[in-house]
Amino acid sequence: MKPKVAKYDSIESEVFGDEAPGVSIRVLVGEEDGAPVYVLRMLEIAPGGNTPDHEHPWEHENYILSGEGEVTVAGETHLVGPGHVVFVPPGVRHQYRCAGDDTFVFLCGIPTASLRG
Amino acid sequence: MKPKVAKYDSIESEVFGDEAPGVSIRVLVGEEDGAPVYVLRMLEIAPGGNTPDHEHPWEHENYILSGEGEVTVAGETHLVGPGHVVFVPPGVRHQYRCAGDDTFVFLCGIPTASLRG
Repeated sequence: MKPKVAKYDSIESEVFGDEAPGVSIRVLVGEEDGAPVYVLRMLEIAPGGNTPDHEHPWEHENYILSGEGEVTVAGETHLVGPGHVVFVPPGVRHQYRCAGDDTFVFLCGIPTASLRG
Repeated sequence: MKPKVAKYDSIESEVFGDEAPGVSIRVLVGEEDGAPVYVLRMLEIAPGGNTPDHEHPWEHENYILSGEGEVTVAGETHLVGPGHVVFVPPGVRHQYRCAGDDTFVFLCGIPTASLRG
């Protein structure tokens, strides 16, 4: 397992499908790097875009980097921006939306595949 | 387990001991929040400060938020700043130093205690 030092924009960004309009994702540190317990991802949501309103048996740990967004978790909507932290526990319904004129960018950590409930 | 939405500076910052001069840490999401697999922490290193040059059997996943720093990992030193990602695999020697006139701030994820090797 090798150390990794990289600028985020040197890491490939993949576009989500139609269920997440305007959303792209980069795997900053993941299984391919040898990450033992969690995958560190960067999500970018363009103005007007959103992730699906959904739930799954694993958690999210988020840190907002730039832009403004709305996070709905367990039925409550929060306006968030740079410096906000969000914890979405396993099994809790959640959705992220860009709420400004700039791209809404945040980190999103999830368990590695073998640890996803 | 409850969702959490908070600004980072509403979360208590704790000063490290003498082995890490100028370093303080905030647990953004941790065991007390119910984090299943990893603890998301924010480290702040004041100008002139550094973490110890050390190793342990668990990994770090870092994202640099602000300031300039030097990260030495596996004997190689990298100059890093906002937008850099660092993965320190388990068992690899590493040290973080503030390399500028502003506080060097970065996220540092580690496994929860029960998953630390």
